[in-house]
Amino acid sequence: MQLVNATLPDTVRIVEVGPRDGLQNEKSQIPTEQKIKFIQLLAEAGLPVVEATSFVSPRAIPQLSDAATVMTSLRRQPAVEYPVLVPNLKGMERALESGVRAVAVFTAASDSFTRHNINASIAESLANFRPILDLARKEAIPVRGYISTVFGCPYEGEVDPHRAVEVAGALFEMGVAEISLGDTIGVANPMQVAHVLNLMLQADIELDQIGVHFHDTRGTALANVLVALQMGVTTIDASAGGLGGCPYAPGAAGNLATEDLLYMLNGMGIKTGVDLDKVVEATRFIAPYLDHPPLSKYYQAAIAATGKDQ
Amino acid sequence: MQLVNATLPDTVRIVEVGPRDGLQNEKSQIPTEQKIKFIQLLAEAGLPVVEATSFVSPRAIPQLSDAATVMTSLRRQPAVEYPVLVPNLKGMERALESGVRAVAVFTAASDSFTRHNINASIAESLANFRPILDLARKEAIPVRGYISTVFGCPYEGEVDPHRAVEVAGALFEMGVAEISLGDTIGVANPMQVAHVLNLMLQADIELDQIGVHFHDTRGTALANVLVALQMGVTTIDASAGGLGGCPYAPGAAGNLATEDLLYMLNGMGIKTGVDLDKVVEATRFIAPYLDHPPLSKYYQAAIAATGKDQ
Repeated sequence: MQLVNATLPDTVRIVEVGPRDGLQNEKSQIPTEQKIKFIQLLAEAGLPVVEATSFVSPRAIPQLSDAATVMTSLRRQPAVEYPVLVPNLKGMERALESGVRAVAVFTAASDSFTRHNINASIAESLANFRPILDLARKEAIPVRGYISTVFGCPYEGEVDPHRAVEVAGALFEMGVAEISLGDTIGVANPMQVAHVLNLMLQADIELDQIGVHFHDTRGTALANVLVALQMGVTTIDASAGGLGGCPYAPGAAGNLATEDLLYMLNGMGIKTGVDLDKVVEATRFIAPYLDHPPLSKYYQAAIAATGKDQ
Repeated sequence: MQLVNATLPDTVRIVEVGPRDGLQNEKSQIPTEQKIKFIQLLAEAGLPVVEATSFVSPRAIPQLSDAATVMTSLRRQPAVEYPVLVPNLKGMERALESGVRAVAVFTAASDSFTRHNINASIAESLANFRPILDLARKEAIPVRGYISTVFGCPYEGEVDPHRAVEVAGALFEMGVAEISLGDTIGVANPMQVAHVLNLMLQADIELDQIGVHFHDTRGTALANVLVALQMGVTTIDASAGGLGGCPYAPGAAGNLATEDLLYMLNGMGIKTGVDLDKVVEATRFIAPYLDHPPLSKYYQAAIAATGKDQ
């Protein structure tokens, strides 16, 4: 019955998505200088990957119109990757001009989600990635592929888990190095996570190429992480402070908080190389620029215990 | 690798602790009539056990000074148990006079916690239970034993897990029917839960006599539940709306919310007999009497999605 001890990894790689996925979904406009400082604090905390920004059209997402400034001004740690999201070839070219050395592309497991978000079907989004992947290969730049709505869609409801497997297969065939499976609206449960990961294994997709990206909207994020770890996943996305909320349920929690993830992994003796206190400090730094307190439960408990303000 | 499917129970029994453990730790004084209605709504939602109140000294916990009124006024469902907490023989006698047919006693795995909370060592608390257990046996009333601070103590920090096993052994020997292992300050992680439950098994304690009582202070409650289920535990304590907070970190989350637990169990196909929507309605009913919004994540997402006020 030693389920937990029998199957857990020794080490987990946390992909910090707070500065991009998190801040992109915050209402407040954060000054560029503070974004840069936030990214630097997260890298100094030992996070191996800090997704920094997105080279989308400044008109589409004004919060990220300073992407080039962020990437050229950032004081980088040699061991840290700072990937950025690129929606199209133009974004990819701008990213390269700004010295970016890792990128991510974004699609979904449900057509109505990609239509709402990037005005394209899944197939069209994949076709748009081809020139990005070609250029990335030429420049020896690793590409991460995000698949949203793997566990449920705000427009379609339930999503056939085979859709995620098909999209993952297409992305790997195109040359992405890693895929992140997203529970965009925070509906996943541990059984469903095990089911999707089993389907990936059956399609000969290795779980060391898979990251999981859970939202804590209904409190299940860490239970889902636990099952993913038990299945052999070792890359987990998280957002400092739980930044980003849930765009589909305003006021509710969204991204799994890096602090909550670290607290659990630390307690279980799983190494990450990340200093939890320093992540709390990074969140404390950015908190005054938000229009609400950070939703990380660990963060809230830590702040309550110290008696400091959030 | 089908860990989850291989070992999960078909059915889970939820012990609802909101009206007692939850309201006892809320600052607001709830009118007696609303408490009764809240208990009735929870029972109507299908919860098999609704811990209703505590027959403590009215001077010790003024919020619960209406215990006798609550128990004699309650309109009961035949299939539902309404246990109450009894701190001593006097409380037990008062409970019996009010028609109570199930009770609970309360101790801890750390002496400094019992000293702070009930002004007794663990051994003294156990000695105090003897006359309660004797009377319960005579009246054929089942007794639940709570062990607090199993996974950590606000005064001592780490707690030797063998302490919980010793206390559990003593309680079972005395005749308690079931024990609830409490993570009073919300510090447990899944590895620790597996470890404590393995120690119980090694001491020949059957896990169908064990309930788990997690707090979500650091976001780990449902991950801890998942491991407990994987180990064979089938009784889970939870509090509607997450009522009760964390007395040791004001403002932080406390009791695992019944809604969050139900959402995960429903998604995993585990039967509870409880109607999640009706629990949300019970929480909506009591919410206006609290001095803060309910902390259940599922509840917050449900309310955000409907656009209603909390």
